[in-house]
Amino acid sequence: MPGRLAGRVVDLGGQWVAPDHTRLISLAREFGVEAYPQYVDGNNIYDLGGQRGTYKLNDTDLPATSLKAVQETVNKLTALATSAFTVTGDLGRHAAGLDGGTLESWLLANVFDRVAYSYFRLMVRATHSAETYETSLLAFVSLFAGENHFEHMTSVRGGAQDSVFDGGVWQLADRMAKELGTAVILGSPVRHILQDDQGVTVRSDQGDWRGRYVVVTAPPTMANRIQVTPPLSSQRDACAQRSPLGNVIKVHLAYSRPFWRDQGLSGQVLSDQTDFGPWFDHSPRKGGSGALVGFYNGATAHKWADRDPIERRMQCLQDVAKYFGTAALSPTDYIEEVWGRSAFHRGGYGTVSGPGVITTFHDALREPVGRIHWAGTETDADYSGYIEGAIRSGENAAAALRKLV
Amino acid sequence: MPGRLAGRVVDLGGQWVAPDHTRLISLAREFGVEAYPQYVDGNNIYDLGGQRGTYKLNDTDLPATSLKAVQETVNKLTALATSAFTVTGDLGRHAAGLDGGTLESWLLANVFDRVAYSYFRLMVRATHSAETYETSLLAFVSLFAGENHFEHMTSVRGGAQDSVFDGGVWQLADRMAKELGTAVILGSPVRHILQDDQGVTVRSDQGDWRGRYVVVTAPPTMANRIQVTPPLSSQRDACAQRSPLGNVIKVHLAYSRPFWRDQGLSGQVLSDQTDFGPWFDHSPRKGGSGALVGFYNGATAHKWADRDPIERRMQCLQDVAKYFGTAALSPTDYIEEVWGRSAFHRGGYGTVSGPGVITTFHDALREPVGRIHWAGTETDADYSGYIEGAIRSGENAAAALRKLV
Repeated sequence: MPGRLAGRVVDLGGQWVAPDHTRLISLAREFGVEAYPQYVDGNNIYDLGGQRGTYKLNDTDLPATSLKAVQETVNKLTALATSAFTVTGDLGRHAAGLDGGTLESWLLANVFDRVAYSYFRLMVRATHSAETYETSLLAFVSLFAGENHFEHMTSVRGGAQDSVFDGGVWQLADRMAKELGTAVILGSPVRHILQDDQGVTVRSDQGDWRGRYVVVTAPPTMANRIQVTPPLSSQRDACAQRSPLGNVIKVHLAYSRPFWRDQGLSGQVLSDQTDFGPWFDHSPRKGGSGALVGFYNGATAHKWADRDPIERRMQCLQDVAKYFGTAALSPTDYIEEVWGRSAFHRGGYGTVSGPGVITTFHDALREPVGRIHWAGTETDADYSGYIEGAIRSGENAAAALRKLV
Repeated sequence: MPGRLAGRVVDLGGQWVAPDHTRLISLAREFGVEAYPQYVDGNNIYDLGGQRGTYKLNDTDLPATSLKAVQETVNKLTALATSAFTVTGDLGRHAAGLDGGTLESWLLANVFDRVAYSYFRLMVRATHSAETYETSLLAFVSLFAGENHFEHMTSVRGGAQDSVFDGGVWQLADRMAKELGTAVILGSPVRHILQDDQGVTVRSDQGDWRGRYVVVTAPPTMANRIQVTPPLSSQRDACAQRSPLGNVIKVHLAYSRPFWRDQGLSGQVLSDQTDFGPWFDHSPRKGGSGALVGFYNGATAHKWADRDPIERRMQCLQDVAKYFGTAALSPTDYIEEVWGRSAFHRGGYGTVSGPGVITTFHDALREPVGRIHWAGTETDADYSGYIEGAIRSGENAAAALRKLV
């Protein structure tokens, strides 16, 4: 979804692309939308567990003991992943044990460095738009099976925040919709899906559509709000009841110039002393003006979503000024999207699996229920929560249906 | 909801009443429906953590060391409750810490007796229709603040399973509906609630109703499926997303006689060796025939809800026969209600609060959103999950509205 910031169009939803987001990259190439690297020059600031300093690029240049604690924690999580998942990615012998508790409980029992503990909490908040007490240890450990997805998710250069699209990634959805023409019907929310032996009827506020199959791409917690006849299985419904979305408020700030660069700063801050954050440099490629993009995530999004927008803006500006100085208090423009209040996407980047969900329900979010198939980023095994996952899940659903029709 | 078992009408939903269920008792008195004690004569069987034996009535007469472990665990939980809640019931200084993990993690770290551990797991399953890894430690500890609600919930005589109603508790709802006459409209599910400065419009499949206020009594996870204009707050929606229902399959078995009584058994079994259970004697007061009532709860309900009914019945009979002998294999009648598959109540007795939910959202499930007020057992502070809680929440909602109109 696009928004307008100081005369420029920016993404209010996802915006970044990683080198391994092959489907997203190929789609952008198809439509001639150019990606360019996330700005990372200069120093990043950290302010964690009572310690403050700077680091560069992807180096998590925390105090030496904390860096060691982070690495040891990653090693432990990788070892757990080996015991929890088989080489083929199935649930292993120790999976159920790890699914009984939260990541937060595990961190408290295994990480004894205040900075490292805070680092994991903030990184989970940033990547999941949820908290360490919301994800089961097993769900988090799955990110360390095979490759280190967590490092990928938290990295800028080479990782999930590698590059952004000139003019915004929303253009791809817009261009696809234009190609599809009248086949895309907007402003017509589906309220009811009826299936029988021959096909499905999809009932919306604007009328009925009939087909042999239907693909539902809404997140599980939103899909559960569509009436289905006959009712979905207990497994599917109960699993979706236990698959809440994280929560996020995305904020864009425009400035006459990227003044933080003068101080040798990259624009990136990792702090447990602010409600707003993390934030990044998102200045336009040309013209010399500056911009930041940042988030209230997880618990801070829950806290701020329903408050007065003016109060929310003040908090955000004060948080940025804490590290960038008073120049941050006078943006030339400010826009935000409060996703928790959006009627059709009540929350954050993706689904959070709490304790017990994976071992009880396995693939219930992915398995078709009769003629109803499921897609959406939450259903993708490798890129859940990312645009790449949404595209792949769509391709997978299309491939599955192609075999059936 | 009533069902018919061997010519007798029985409850497919809640059925028991406790001495302190004052509203339920007074309602029954008003309609002349008589309560009589749950049958408890003879020996209860336990088969937990590899140990098997019998005990009587409310004595949890487990092996001496296990009984001591249970009592020590209750003492620890009571101490935690003192640190987590103030004397007025507000969240105390240690609440957030206890809300970061699951009861399951805490049991594993604090209970080192295999029987006692299994006891708590089964009791949570029986009382919450959910698992120890689904409830946050804080939510569970709240049962030990002030009085020991947990003991009340797990007890028969004097507790939540004290008595049953002659002819079933469903009669009370039925009689109330008859008194209300045409004011009660059935078979007309509400799909959309619109509120404005003057009042609310409630839109159902049968038409619109207009009022100054509306009280929604559906469980949070079901209430979230009603479209609301303007949309509910982020807090309310996100909290309901994180408030799944437990899951339960209730089964009634009829026999020509209560043959287990001949063996000196009460009919009550607590076992971690069966999927079905617990079960209780539910023989009719007169006529000499026998009946058992029992449950698949929590994980076993998720496992069995979508399977072939014949297979489910076989599992249930085999589980009962394991302790009562082959006579159990030949009931004269059998009925069940699979609540997870019921279109308008997708699960168990009440809402389960996982890690973080209480400390993040506090009273979001209870607080009115404009002219929309909430009732239902999930919103009652003291009797959540019980019929008593449903009645009290209705009275409270009515009292709140009486002040407004």
